[in-house]
Amino acid sequence: MWLSVPKESDFSIHNLPFGVFQPSVDASARAGIAIGDHIVDLAAAATAGLFGKRRFFRQIFEQTTLNDFIALGKPVTNKVRRKVKEWLELPQKPENATQILQPRKTAIMRMPLRVPNYTDFYSSIEHATNVGKMFRPDNPLLPNWRWLPVGYHGRASSIVVSGTPIKRPWGQILPPGGAPDTPIYAASRQLDFELEMAFVIGKESALGEPIAVDQADAYIFGVVLFNDWSARDIQRWEYVPLGPFLGKNFGSSISPWIVPLEALKPFKVKGPKQTPAPLEYLKSKGASNYEINLEVSITPAKGNQETIISNSNTKYLYWSMAQQLAHHTVNGCNVQVGDLMASGTISGPTPDSYGSLLELSWGGKKPLTLKDGSSRTFLENGDTLSMRAWAEKDGLRVGFGEVEGSVNE
Amino acid sequence: MWLSVPKESDFSIHNLPFGVFQPSVDASARAGIAIGDHIVDLAAAATAGLFGKRRFFRQIFEQTTLNDFIALGKPVTNKVRRKVKEWLELPQKPENATQILQPRKTAIMRMPLRVPNYTDFYSSIEHATNVGKMFRPDNPLLPNWRWLPVGYHGRASSIVVSGTPIKRPWGQILPPGGAPDTPIYAASRQLDFELEMAFVIGKESALGEPIAVDQADAYIFGVVLFNDWSARDIQRWEYVPLGPFLGKNFGSSISPWIVPLEALKPFKVKGPKQTPAPLEYLKSKGASNYEINLEVSITPAKGNQETIISNSNTKYLYWSMAQQLAHHTVNGCNVQVGDLMASGTISGPTPDSYGSLLELSWGGKKPLTLKDGSSRTFLENGDTLSMRAWAEKDGLRVGFGEVEGSVNE
Repeated sequence: MWLSVPKESDFSIHNLPFGVFQPSVDASARAGIAIGDHIVDLAAAATAGLFGKRRFFRQIFEQTTLNDFIALGKPVTNKVRRKVKEWLELPQKPENATQILQPRKTAIMRMPLRVPNYTDFYSSIEHATNVGKMFRPDNPLLPNWRWLPVGYHGRASSIVVSGTPIKRPWGQILPPGGAPDTPIYAASRQLDFELEMAFVIGKESALGEPIAVDQADAYIFGVVLFNDWSARDIQRWEYVPLGPFLGKNFGSSISPWIVPLEALKPFKVKGPKQTPAPLEYLKSKGASNYEINLEVSITPAKGNQETIISNSNTKYLYWSMAQQLAHHTVNGCNVQVGDLMASGTISGPTPDSYGSLLELSWGGKKPLTLKDGSSRTFLENGDTLSMRAWAEKDGLRVGFGEVEGSVNE
Repeated sequence: MWLSVPKESDFSIHNLPFGVFQPSVDASARAGIAIGDHIVDLAAAATAGLFGKRRFFRQIFEQTTLNDFIALGKPVTNKVRRKVKEWLELPQKPENATQILQPRKTAIMRMPLRVPNYTDFYSSIEHATNVGKMFRPDNPLLPNWRWLPVGYHGRASSIVVSGTPIKRPWGQILPPGGAPDTPIYAASRQLDFELEMAFVIGKESALGEPIAVDQADAYIFGVVLFNDWSARDIQRWEYVPLGPFLGKNFGSSISPWIVPLEALKPFKVKGPKQTPAPLEYLKSKGASNYEINLEVSITPAKGNQETIISNSNTKYLYWSMAQQLAHHTVNGCNVQVGDLMASGTISGPTPDSYGSLLELSWGGKKPLTLKDGSSRTFLENGDTLSMRAWAEKDGLRVGFGEVEGSVNE
């Protein structure tokens, strides 16, 4: 390989994730593939003839979202990755390299998708149990939880790309210790993150036609990191009986690079044993989870010192992506290209692997101490919250980069 | 007026609602305005120069959804209605009439919108109380209900236009009287409708910027009838703690004609007195409800005999559309052109005005008798469910036509 890729890079030759970027503020947006510290400009690569049909691919890659490209299907999207791989593995640096490669550091990453529909699951048994203990002490894990991947619809319009600041939401809050049932209108005092992964639908299905669990992979284009920002005080007051609404829909952030499902294959592992055994339509054979390391940090505005606050792993998820998709469509609900389906908070079994401040600070009762000596129960204005994810095995490394956002007043 | 409009028509000269239609199976889709038994073909009217800028308007009206047209803003959309009104009120039949007018009877109505986001509210106190009594006998109306318009996100992909058949959904159901907590996979036995109205967002807002209650009308383009099909047995098992999901997202139906908010102005009325008084951000001055008659019928496949099963009215809604929108965005959630926000089931105070079979048959305990002698607790395969809506005052009539769908196996 003529291009040098740092050994610890998330964006190894095995990864080749897709994103949309501007090389500079003045340049137009286009599709790209991340490789090490660089980006392969796919519009330029198309113009150079890397994929054949120059005009067709140039037009596809000059769009501001990947939806039309993804809709071409895996034979095409994987062929593009293969052609880029071949180009990167040429015996020596090709003449068109400077024209096609862009530095990643100065690129501006854009929201890579138009998201027609967004669904959030609740697939970590550790998270569901932890939250249940706090919200419903008598009844932490509800009777349906082990039978089906509980999920709900979220707001697609407010999904933003990593780096977009998040404005602290205002809303109705029932102050603790106040007169019963008398809410106030105030800024949220319990602004939280949720550590999640989301998969991107790559193939549409027809209304009325379920997707079988063993067909799910054909419908999943790739995966991103997902921060489901949550205002716990707003959520607690509003969420009965129809679920979270304004406690969630003020913003969700995704990582800019979509890691193709194919790049994650080497990291497949068996999921937790499911007891009781799922109903037939949710049964899957073989490994259907992924072993992907997850890390969360807070960096306060003042001092700019980062503290890792959680280390988790996608392997803990009780319900797999394939089961989530099979369940979502078992009633005939249709999916569309670009739909996002998020896992729900991924908490591990130990307190240092919890995927939200609600759990890490146990409802605000156990403040966390950051490296700069300050403490947190929930997020403060100026805090930057970052999540990173990477899989590693036998010298292969496939990472997601990060999703970060800072909290504004 | 040179065109004869039947006196009882929903589509009077005061209405002029927008839709997308094909004049025949072979013809392409285009935008139209309903008038009596006819449709003004807006693409043809643009070509004839009715709106100036022929090419611009022809291209806008030849699209398969109204989103781009609606996004032009009310000054433009209302000017188009005004120009059509002037044309219809010419002293004599214009020469281009045959070219511009199409018969409504043979037209094929299409889904008029691409719906980027869909939200369902729960704004009828009668409905919330009725359902609460059945699902939570001890606690029918939850403490938050009178403080905020409870709402949740629904599935946009499965919203279909009136006339689209609905496939009975399969899913997990907890059979009554079975072993505790052992669900089965089966076709829903409690398929229901929900009588709702939905408003269409006509102007986008920025993330982080709330829409004030007295600014809401500027963001509301128009209103449609909405059938939120519901599988009660699936819903009952799945809905805790995150809300309805597969019990709803197999399909929702809308009426094909979007009635502009301006056409509904004469029918504004005060809503029910709100106790306790809403928080400041939800306070509105003057009349903010609408008096619109609602009617629901079932027509079994066999015999084709229609029975009216409910008569309700939008005036019963506790929370107004303006309050719904102000609440939805108070946390900074952004809205997009084409978003649908549905009212939730509109039930009145008397049993013959309930807006769902769940309430009409009181959870299946009081079967309804139809005109053909058959009885219903929930919908049967082959049943056609129709909803109609119209406002009438001082000789003005503005109607919505109908939304209908038949239930397939």
